[in-house]
Amino acid sequence: MDTDEFRRLWDELAPIGRQSGGGYLRYSWSAADLACRDWFRAQARERGLTCETDRNGNLYAWWGDPESGDAVLTGSHFDSVPHGGAYDGPLGIVSAFLAVDALRAAGDRPRRPIAVGAFTEEEGGRFGVPCLGTRLMTGAVDPDRARALTDPAGTALADAMREAGADPDALGPDPERLARIGAFVELHVEQGRRLADEDAPVGVASAIWPHGRWRLDFTGAADHAGTTRLPDRRDPMLTFAFAVLAARKEARLAGGLATIGRVVAEPNATNAIAATVTAWLDARAPDEAVLAAILAGFRSKVTERAARDRTGFTIRAESETPVVDFDADLRDRIAERLGGAPVLPTGAGHDAGVLAAHVPTAMLFVRNPTGVSHAPAEAASDEDCAAGVEALAAVLRDLAC
Amino acid sequence: MDTDEFRRLWDELAPIGRQSGGGYLRYSWSAADLACRDWFRAQARERGLTCETDRNGNLYAWWGDPESGDAVLTGSHFDSVPHGGAYDGPLGIVSAFLAVDALRAAGDRPRRPIAVGAFTEEEGGRFGVPCLGTRLMTGAVDPDRARALTDPAGTALADAMREAGADPDALGPDPERLARIGAFVELHVEQGRRLADEDAPVGVASAIWPHGRWRLDFTGAADHAGTTRLPDRRDPMLTFAFAVLAARKEARLAGGLATIGRVVAEPNATNAIAATVTAWLDARAPDEAVLAAILAGFRSKVTERAARDRTGFTIRAESETPVVDFDADLRDRIAERLGGAPVLPTGAGHDAGVLAAHVPTAMLFVRNPTGVSHAPAEAASDEDCAAGVEALAAVLRDLAC
Repeated sequence: MDTDEFRRLWDELAPIGRQSGGGYLRYSWSAADLACRDWFRAQARERGLTCETDRNGNLYAWWGDPESGDAVLTGSHFDSVPHGGAYDGPLGIVSAFLAVDALRAAGDRPRRPIAVGAFTEEEGGRFGVPCLGTRLMTGAVDPDRARALTDPAGTALADAMREAGADPDALGPDPERLARIGAFVELHVEQGRRLADEDAPVGVASAIWPHGRWRLDFTGAADHAGTTRLPDRRDPMLTFAFAVLAARKEARLAGGLATIGRVVAEPNATNAIAATVTAWLDARAPDEAVLAAILAGFRSKVTERAARDRTGFTIRAESETPVVDFDADLRDRIAERLGGAPVLPTGAGHDAGVLAAHVPTAMLFVRNPTGVSHAPAEAASDEDCAAGVEALAAVLRDLAC
Repeated sequence: MDTDEFRRLWDELAPIGRQSGGGYLRYSWSAADLACRDWFRAQARERGLTCETDRNGNLYAWWGDPESGDAVLTGSHFDSVPHGGAYDGPLGIVSAFLAVDALRAAGDRPRRPIAVGAFTEEEGGRFGVPCLGTRLMTGAVDPDRARALTDPAGTALADAMREAGADPDALGPDPERLARIGAFVELHVEQGRRLADEDAPVGVASAIWPHGRWRLDFTGAADHAGTTRLPDRRDPMLTFAFAVLAARKEARLAGGLATIGRVVAEPNATNAIAATVTAWLDARAPDEAVLAAILAGFRSKVTERAARDRTGFTIRAESETPVVDFDADLRDRIAERLGGAPVLPTGAGHDAGVLAAHVPTAMLFVRNPTGVSHAPAEAASDEDCAAGVEALAAVLRDLAC
């Protein structure tokens, strides 16, 4: 495939939600998200694909009859983490449209319907629950809970949807739509350096590490920073600080990952001891025993420290995702079709991880020379992106034509 | 004095800016602040006192001719830290009006003018620089710098003042007004337990500890929390967490106070390693050598840790206040007048600390049974508040009548 062809379509989408620092704000149901949705509909229209939005806000562009079943679905998501990179999500949607173009240009005629998909709130960047669109669709998240989720400004998902012209009352499981899908393939920028190290433009996913998000609440007693004796203090910032270092240490010892990247202190005043500190722990590991060991170590060390600080500490899971092993037949078939592309696991969650429990699912990764993701430095060369489109087209041809 | 009399006036002011959790939001130039200013003007009017607002937004209600000089000024501030207590500031203003009432009821006639004052932005709770009104008046803060200060929502002081109907172009030193003041006495709720321990309703300040605020900037590299290997990370949250614990340790070893109560992480997403963490250090000590030792230890330990974390760390003073020893003659005279009231130092900054460099200044403290300040649990009994008014009236009588 011509890199110009990739670049042309990419440059249409890329300005939407881009900030002056190079990062993206594409929160779900924001103006930027609505602009991305308009772009999606225009792409479907230009290609004569039937466009539909499901009850959970996920978009589909159908090549073939949506009702005939056993469809091959490919796509990803538009939404970004705050100030995230350009490729995480959108690359999978742009590549899906271009793969359809490539099949048509080659005269391929699918025997199974092919659909391009764009899923809502994959990052959980606005409402906190990742893969919300596919989790709602598959019944993994209760629609009442989803409607009540709030963004950092306090806006509920239900209100954000209404403001965007969508109907929050419709949210919920969608077994009929799910039953139409015979296979799902998600193309995604790699979020690490493995393909760069192996000198390969495209790889195939073996598994998604088990992972989760836990909300941490530290409580103490607000008081004057200039007059309260150190022994009289109950300062939750101390317990929080210990927790940040403990998470890192437990992850290092067990061989997994743990990160605290989000924190909110109250009243957050320079001359007041904090009353509360709320933070979120992200933890992942190659297997569930390692993840459990990190959590157990973290919980016991921080509980002990909170007792010493005379502060309160609670930890509550907001989402927990067991290990996802992608369909082995599909994975091997794709790796072979792509001439022995590297097969690699990932620590990142994806809609493919949610759908894998319901339909045979595979992921393709496109090389990321920086290895950075969820930040503006996330990258992929036009050549590798074009190679990704070719690989996706080959997979769709193999599965559907 | 009758406690009912105190309670009546207190209950007029107390609802303004009170939140459902019992704490106060009285940011300077907010609607709540403007309501407090209206209340002040109404109090002056009811008592036939001449009300004026100076170029820096500080209010005065004059008993006697403002122009005649050598005035005795008493008062405090309306503004609160976020979700602060009821007494810090407002008690000094309410007590000042009631002390004027008490002198009049006793038939006292001042030979020097007496003024009740209310100073702007004492807490620095909105624009970050404490005692901004008195610092501007005395020339300790450059008016251009003040106008450009922004609140957490990004609103500049100049714009906030304009929106409130005030003129930011007038901000600046006010030597003529300062020259009218012959003495300043600030009554304030105690921000500790010392008077409770000594079983005394009222005390006299000896000194304000040297103290300051430092902005801490930690920089790293944003990246994906689920895919970035621990050794590849440059996570500023780790360095920040170390700094929180280091500040506490250095203060404990040196015998001072150090607090980090305010933190802002970017992008502040659960599944992204932070790009930057900004925090503020509040440090205080009985003398300047101890304060310097805390700062030096903190700076060197955190710099060392940042090198290990491969993160950036800078520390920059936002305000530094040397030790304030209140006027010794005035202090001794007041303590004697109050029948040997306890004399105690404080770690908290006050407008009295700023004005002490220019005019003989004293502070009275009213017992706080919880010892808590800058939080809703801050307290004073009506009996102690009435005793505070009586003590202030006695001091004003002694100085002015």
